[in-house]
Amino acid sequence: MSTNLSGLFSPQSVAIIGASKFPEKVGAIVLKNIQDSGFKGEIYPVNPKETEINGLKCFPNINSIPDVPDLAVIAVPANITLELLTEIGNKGIKNAVIFTAGFKEIGPEGETLQKHLEEIATKFKINILGPNCLGFANNDLPINVTFGQVIKEKGNLRIISQSGAIAASLFDWCQTTKLGYSEFVTVGNKAVITENDILRYWATQSEPKILDSRLSKVFPIGLYLESIADGQEFVKIAKEISKTTPIFALKPGKSKAAVAAMHSHTGAIAGEDNVLDVAFKQAGIIRCHQLSEFFDVARALAWENAPKGPRVVVVSNAGGPAVLSTDSISEAGLEMAQFNEETQKKLSGFLPRMASFLNPVDILGDALADRFGQALEAVLQEPSVDAAIVILTPQLMTQIEKTADIIGKLSARYSQPVLCSFIGGSLASIGEKKLNEYKIPSFAFPEMAINALSLMWQWQNWRNLENKKVVQSENILKIDIENIQSILSSAKNYGQKNLDNFSANEVINSAGISTPLTLSLSEISQGVLFAETVGWPVVLKISSPELLHKADIGGVIVNIKSAEELNQAWNKLLKQIMSLDEKTKKGAKIQIQQQIVGGVEVIVGVKRDPNFGPVVLFGAGGKFAEILGDRNLHLLPLGEVEAKELVENSKIFKLLNGFRGDKPYDLHKLYETIIRLGKIAETSPDIAEIEINPLIITHEGVSAVDSKVVLA
Amino acid sequence: MSTNLSGLFSPQSVAIIGASKFPEKVGAIVLKNIQDSGFKGEIYPVNPKETEINGLKCFPNINSIPDVPDLAVIAVPANITLELLTEIGNKGIKNAVIFTAGFKEIGPEGETLQKHLEEIATKFKINILGPNCLGFANNDLPINVTFGQVIKEKGNLRIISQSGAIAASLFDWCQTTKLGYSEFVTVGNKAVITENDILRYWATQSEPKILDSRLSKVFPIGLYLESIADGQEFVKIAKEISKTTPIFALKPGKSKAAVAAMHSHTGAIAGEDNVLDVAFKQAGIIRCHQLSEFFDVARALAWENAPKGPRVVVVSNAGGPAVLSTDSISEAGLEMAQFNEETQKKLSGFLPRMASFLNPVDILGDALADRFGQALEAVLQEPSVDAAIVILTPQLMTQIEKTADIIGKLSARYSQPVLCSFIGGSLASIGEKKLNEYKIPSFAFPEMAINALSLMWQWQNWRNLENKKVVQSENILKIDIENIQSILSSAKNYGQKNLDNFSANEVINSAGISTPLTLSLSEISQGVLFAETVGWPVVLKISSPELLHKADIGGVIVNIKSAEELNQAWNKLLKQIMSLDEKTKKGAKIQIQQQIVGGVEVIVGVKRDPNFGPVVLFGAGGKFAEILGDRNLHLLPLGEVEAKELVENSKIFKLLNGFRGDKPYDLHKLYETIIRLGKIAETSPDIAEIEINPLIITHEGVSAVDSKVVLA
Repeated sequence: MSTNLSGLFSPQSVAIIGASKFPEKVGAIVLKNIQDSGFKGEIYPVNPKETEINGLKCFPNINSIPDVPDLAVIAVPANITLELLTEIGNKGIKNAVIFTAGFKEIGPEGETLQKHLEEIATKFKINILGPNCLGFANNDLPINVTFGQVIKEKGNLRIISQSGAIAASLFDWCQTTKLGYSEFVTVGNKAVITENDILRYWATQSEPKILDSRLSKVFPIGLYLESIADGQEFVKIAKEISKTTPIFALKPGKSKAAVAAMHSHTGAIAGEDNVLDVAFKQAGIIRCHQLSEFFDVARALAWENAPKGPRVVVVSNAGGPAVLSTDSISEAGLEMAQFNEETQKKLSGFLPRMASFLNPVDILGDALADRFGQALEAVLQEPSVDAAIVILTPQLMTQIEKTADIIGKLSARYSQPVLCSFIGGSLASIGEKKLNEYKIPSFAFPEMAINALSLMWQWQNWRNLENKKVVQSENILKIDIENIQSILSSAKNYGQKNLDNFSANEVINSAGISTPLTLSLSEISQGVLFAETVGWPVVLKISSPELLHKADIGGVIVNIKSAEELNQAWNKLLKQIMSLDEKTKKGAKIQIQQQIVGGVEVIVGVKRDPNFGPVVLFGAGGKFAEILGDRNLHLLPLGEVEAKELVENSKIFKLLNGFRGDKPYDLHKLYETIIRLGKIAETSPDIAEIEINPLIITHEGVSAVDSKVVLA
Repeated sequence: MSTNLSGLFSPQSVAIIGASKFPEKVGAIVLKNIQDSGFKGEIYPVNPKETEINGLKCFPNINSIPDVPDLAVIAVPANITLELLTEIGNKGIKNAVIFTAGFKEIGPEGETLQKHLEEIATKFKINILGPNCLGFANNDLPINVTFGQVIKEKGNLRIISQSGAIAASLFDWCQTTKLGYSEFVTVGNKAVITENDILRYWATQSEPKILDSRLSKVFPIGLYLESIADGQEFVKIAKEISKTTPIFALKPGKSKAAVAAMHSHTGAIAGEDNVLDVAFKQAGIIRCHQLSEFFDVARALAWENAPKGPRVVVVSNAGGPAVLSTDSISEAGLEMAQFNEETQKKLSGFLPRMASFLNPVDILGDALADRFGQALEAVLQEPSVDAAIVILTPQLMTQIEKTADIIGKLSARYSQPVLCSFIGGSLASIGEKKLNEYKIPSFAFPEMAINALSLMWQWQNWRNLENKKVVQSENILKIDIENIQSILSSAKNYGQKNLDNFSANEVINSAGISTPLTLSLSEISQGVLFAETVGWPVVLKISSPELLHKADIGGVIVNIKSAEELNQAWNKLLKQIMSLDEKTKKGAKIQIQQQIVGGVEVIVGVKRDPNFGPVVLFGAGGKFAEILGDRNLHLLPLGEVEAKELVENSKIFKLLNGFRGDKPYDLHKLYETIIRLGKIAETSPDIAEIEINPLIITHEGVSAVDSKVVLA
């Protein structure tokens, strides 16, 4: 598919297949929307039953159109859509919007229909938006190719939505708040064109010029997605765009995903939603967790620039909300700005004695508009202020509209973002309306303004860190791929789903990760000899490819300190094996292992996410794994910088890095191990999942005590 | 102070000291507000300069009033307030509202003034509301004794606010949403009357009859407090009220409190805000963390009954918001209701084929009002549904107002709470206005409705559990109070701030909590003998009353397995002691201790909160304490039920209760230990703080390995 979608989204001529005279029909609404939108190109209604619609000549079929239009809009029933699509292809039209529902979303029958649609698209190289979508609108051209109520207010916002309903709510809200947009695309079933294509197209377009100085300097992109077409591709494109343009995204289905992920033990550990979370984070995407957040951050990013730093000032005519905001600011990962003496002096010059000259600046309940203005200006002049939150409660003397007016004028003169919260009902909304004119985002409550600000800062902070990252030299860690492949194919030949302990250890060893000395025992005397050679204590455990959670059934005995204890352990495990089901019992062996003393247990693993590919997991191991909930993820590939970041963000890191006078554990070796494990996964698509649990980190190195390899 | 505040809040006659003819004066506004409020009693304006105000006879002074009014309202400058208050006292007036500012809130000067005010109040037994308050309004009487804009809409809401600004915002919002109230009190500086007095008064009043069947069956109480007058008393009263009436509260200053709490190690562990949190929880108070939550839950509680259970149904004309709501419901601790077959069949009878007959019920974008109604009725008839959330997005065919109308009528006929979210801007708000008429709470976004619902359920659930609690028989655990007292007074005589290890252990022992065998050593040979008697391994540690965090400086050596290792440890600690400062060094001793093997380390402590009194702390101990962040609190007193609850809510509980095939540790002994420690704190006000860290729990009992006692 072409990455140039300008014929689709900025057409010079449009055919409307199924244009209609009956105003309630989709084919009538879209025609009227295009005509009303100020579209300056040619419009060709197509309907065999009409000769003229809305003053435009109507064509009996596609072929009779004298031109080859850039875009065809299909507003006909599903059963004739494919036929018409072929006509479109034959005509040489390269772009189509299909509103029609009744495809994949209705089940197997529709799925077949959609497959045919995709085949036609491939054959004729047609870019198709939809089916089952609301269309798109481009306010820059302008053109409105939807059958909904779309706002005409021009702006800088770009939205891709997989839901028509969200679009409808958003438009109603935009209308009320006067939030304008640049392009709005609903993608429907994403049969041909996905969010990735549109993002790639936007990335290659030259940035449109900002038309309105009241707006922020970027063209923020909002994504409402119910599914992600190709996660790995998505992360790549989004990461590139995020470097200059903020992307914010909302994807429902967290809890559902979590439930689905519960069906396998490791699944529960690295549930899909955690993967999505880390994917968004790595791509610099602002993740919205709720609808309100999506709406709030849309307006904040469209109207204000992201703050350059995390230091916020609060100016308020009410003490309570100001203190509450202080709480919210620290909870949101922002900071309260500290004023220099000059600013404090400036503030004390005009504020009443009872006011607060520190941050939050309480300008008191009797503050008129001018006092709001003086205080806001004084703090915006302070170099340590990165952003301002202005709070107004409608008290007896409060000049609501005038205050909004003064804030609007001031905000235009200073570079820091200013966000407002006028708290109340209809009185407060008078101020809000005025703020909307100045494109100052205002929020029903201060905590919402602070949350939006913190999401903006999250993006800016990601950019700062991303720009600082040095390009890593090619990784020189070598792993013995050949040997790993041969172990894997041998296991596959035997029809194994998981490697047995011994083979799993061999894979780990082949990647240059050391494991404790281990021996499969056929009789107990070998064990005593082993222990006397490597030193007590030792570990005795059952190994079977069918037994993934041996600790849970008492299949691991540690701390064996003598021949007598070894004997007891041996008998216990033999008894244990006897109680296993036939299949598990069949491959069961008893292994003896050197015990690693005095280290910290962690877990390192790689799992393949169906959407985002291989994901590395790192966290606390052993008993505390579950209790700590220390699950830290990173998409592959990863280098030393990322491995370090992964470990440093974990909860167990505190313990690894020299806790309370203890000396740090061998972190370098840990980073290396994570990278090596990543390499195994990257080079071996046959491995569905690989996990070392526990990996014991000591002061002198690491040791993979127990490893699990699940085959694809 | 009298608990009968009916003369204050339901007066039959009111004097207004400082009544004025000039409309902008406080004394004019309050007079007008009382007159306009429909107050049916006598009004006596007092002003030496006037003979008549607003058609009422004006009195030159208080004494000249022919009657003894129930209430005097003081709207005069601070400097003459006290003089007038004495006149009020002499006249025999027992209730006063003082608007005047310039007292405690302005610093030392005002503080003195307020002290005098309190003295006069005590002398004449006057109930004073304020000073520095906005007054109160009682819509049931009715009377409006404020100088603000107060709404007249009658309702069931009762509010106590320490902030006039919050009141102003709330009123503006109530006006817009048509949320009515019963009583509204601003408490200002709380010189005489506090929230506790008002709560106690409300608790003794007979419940007012619900005037309006559209409202919920309770008179919810909202508290906005910047300080809490007497925490222990507050918890007692609130807990009693919460059994029948929901209380929701917002208190700013979380982060500030957290910072203040950082100054001492244990302070950080049980920071003030955590104590507030647990106090609210124990009292059954719904804690609001943000202003939006306070406003949202006010309306939800005023208009809908709390759900009987956690099972929620979602009915929506949009799939995306429905799935997002499913996420929110599980995150909020609620559940998605499961329909029986009959309901599913009913739904499939009228919903289109593409709709969802399961929960969430997606009735599709083309749903007209009737389909909303049919679906909502079908699910409200289902016995497993405890509450319903209805979501509407304004799509092309959506009948917004008619849908609201149908929901309103339906909701009145079913007992479950129905909360709505019409998502959008001005279109959506048409529906909201209609819902307001029916007193159906609606929210800008579904997650807000769900959050309000979860807070309602939190209260209902607390009530259910509270009612189930059996009265516990008097605790029979005995502790040797006399011995503890003698240890404490001896330490106090020596001017110690903390007990040394040995004395701390003795206190612990006197409470019936066992400690490992311990011996203070004067020479190493005693240590070897000790170890050979109690068995290796042993622990060697420095003990000094000045040394609270000995582990941090390497003052504890564990796992000593031989005489040789003991010797090494001895020398190491001697060296360590030499490096201490003079004061710490002076009291330092070396102790040897039996090592408890194979248990789980926890921390148990009691600290005195300045507001809520002694608070028990329980959580994971040792290295993992900090990493797990496992801090669980309970106010004293506590019995076995509470001790059990405290432990069961901890993160470490999983490990204690038999993790992965391990057998449970001695939990009964743990509960007992917590109760015994509580008893020490209750009976010994000389102890500011007592802590066992670690307490080691084994399968056979518990052992207090290290104890700390800080004197008051």
